[in-house]
Amino acid sequence: MSIKKLGSQTIRFENPPSIIGAASIVGPKEGQGRFKDYYDLILSDNIYAESSWEKAEKKILKETIEIAIKNANLTTTKIEYLIAGDLLNQIISAGFAARELEIPFLGIYGACSTLAEGVTLGSIIVDGGFAENVVAAVSSHFCTAERQFRFPLELGNQRTPTSQWTVTGAGAMVLSSKQQNPRVTFATTGKVIDMGESDSNDMGAAMAPAAIDTIIRHFQDTGKTPDDYDLIITGDLGSIGKEITEELLKQKGYNMSNKYADCGVLIYYPEQDVHAGGSGCACSAVVTCGYIFKEMLKGQYNKVLLIATGALLSTTSSQQGETIPCIAHAISLENL
Amino acid sequence: MSIKKLGSQTIRFENPPSIIGAASIVGPKEGQGRFKDYYDLILSDNIYAESSWEKAEKKILKETIEIAIKNANLTTTKIEYLIAGDLLNQIISAGFAARELEIPFLGIYGACSTLAEGVTLGSIIVDGGFAENVVAAVSSHFCTAERQFRFPLELGNQRTPTSQWTVTGAGAMVLSSKQQNPRVTFATTGKVIDMGESDSNDMGAAMAPAAIDTIIRHFQDTGKTPDDYDLIITGDLGSIGKEITEELLKQKGYNMSNKYADCGVLIYYPEQDVHAGGSGCACSAVVTCGYIFKEMLKGQYNKVLLIATGALLSTTSSQQGETIPCIAHAISLENL
Repeated sequence: MSIKKLGSQTIRFENPPSIIGAASIVGPKEGQGRFKDYYDLILSDNIYAESSWEKAEKKILKETIEIAIKNANLTTTKIEYLIAGDLLNQIISAGFAARELEIPFLGIYGACSTLAEGVTLGSIIVDGGFAENVVAAVSSHFCTAERQFRFPLELGNQRTPTSQWTVTGAGAMVLSSKQQNPRVTFATTGKVIDMGESDSNDMGAAMAPAAIDTIIRHFQDTGKTPDDYDLIITGDLGSIGKEITEELLKQKGYNMSNKYADCGVLIYYPEQDVHAGGSGCACSAVVTCGYIFKEMLKGQYNKVLLIATGALLSTTSSQQGETIPCIAHAISLENL
Repeated sequence: MSIKKLGSQTIRFENPPSIIGAASIVGPKEGQGRFKDYYDLILSDNIYAESSWEKAEKKILKETIEIAIKNANLTTTKIEYLIAGDLLNQIISAGFAARELEIPFLGIYGACSTLAEGVTLGSIIVDGGFAENVVAAVSSHFCTAERQFRFPLELGNQRTPTSQWTVTGAGAMVLSSKQQNPRVTFATTGKVIDMGESDSNDMGAAMAPAAIDTIIRHFQDTGKTPDDYDLIITGDLGSIGKEITEELLKQKGYNMSNKYADCGVLIYYPEQDVHAGGSGCACSAVVTCGYIFKEMLKGQYNKVLLIATGALLSTTSSQQGETIPCIAHAISLENL
């Protein structure tokens, strides 16, 4: 077994890739949330002067990537791979953004875990010496997700108390072989876990077992404990999934309560009425590329474990009576 | 620039990963085609004893992966990453197959180019020393694709002369750090190219410019010429796209006519009435994991360039008036 591989699911990067630039754009609702001071741009509406929400999502993703590249003091011609995905069928936001950016493109899909998947693959490419600069990016949009996965917005359906609100926005990171902080030091790639949950309005409960599996695997593979991190943050379990995760990990001997948070719980204020919290690829992405990245630059955090979670269902799989297969990928971000 | 990177889009693998096992399963129509003697299993019907075509596709993909691992004399616990994708919304075939296989999972989407994307990423992971054994796998299914992208099969719609037939099947490859033939020696990752074609029943013409762009980039980056290969084969341009590709490359000084083929043209016999040829993720995958892999083992081919092409549209993008963004990824397979 290569020394780069720890245990069964974790990579330790030998020359940890640097995050030399990051960016986030969000919609107006996210711009009223807890991290409003950390985003590069807050839109005043969800349509962003386009003729459809899907075109708006593509524009948000493309511009976020451009800002991240600019923040890294690079131009698009210096980016060797764009690794991107989103929630839409055939990941059209990413594909159409890549058309305009003209960067060699690798499309990925991991539902709301997609950013962590992209950072894992981008870090492998950079640490392996296959590229100097790679962008990992994702987007989601409340309006495109609602009409694709649930109901036309015009219906004005009521939302159940366990439901989560898809974040409108995009996050992008430039990963580089340059040596500066923060770095990507470890990546634990998850297995697909399905404990039989079938309620697509209760994603947090469905995804919690995948998060727990990957967190335990990360600690077992690396020999680390929760004490080795300043912040352990899941992607979008929301209030229900977070409680399950915290409780079950405690039962298994991992007490994280003083440093454990969830992007979906934090991204909106409770009075914003999103029920169980935020979700979508952009949820963990804008929190990571906005809040976490900027606080790491300041040294407020030095060791962060992000566990991004995804529910790999489709409307077809639900209609055919399938339960919800879920996945979680963990990445360690550290100032060395 | 790292020595592993040639030009702007091509990787030269330092320790070229070996394909230590491959497998393909196809539907009955493909089983009557030109490569019928090369598949591991030919199904007698498209439903494969399942209750839906989608569940059948998942079963085909899962079993193909299992056969590939068995053909490599390994067990699933020895596979460190499963990199897989398919055409269905939210790549449910891959996600649900991964649920049953319990291998750390990286979901990818490149439409019909997905196998080449997976082989590229898998080879990066193996050559970079991050894993010893990785599986790249894809599937497609005529019945699931027709109802998702076009019309319910029950309508019995007529097909236009330029249309292609989605291959029912799956292909899987085990990439390993072991040193044996055949190997993955180069990978040229494509940019998204869109020349303004909007007819989703004429994918070959839409994808041809992407194939041409990647082929020229491959030759420019590597300094190779068509003479350096025994076989240059595109994924699923079909008869119309193949003719465009051949003619335009000739005009640009690349005469490939004596060794150029297309998986979509070859996979069915002309009398099978599929109009412009085969398509779908499985098209290049079953030809590569069946015919090409087995002929390379025999030494009939020693240097093959596969250029898998994909059309990154969705029904939503077409309904909103978008043209078809396309991509092509090239991989070199060589007996060293």
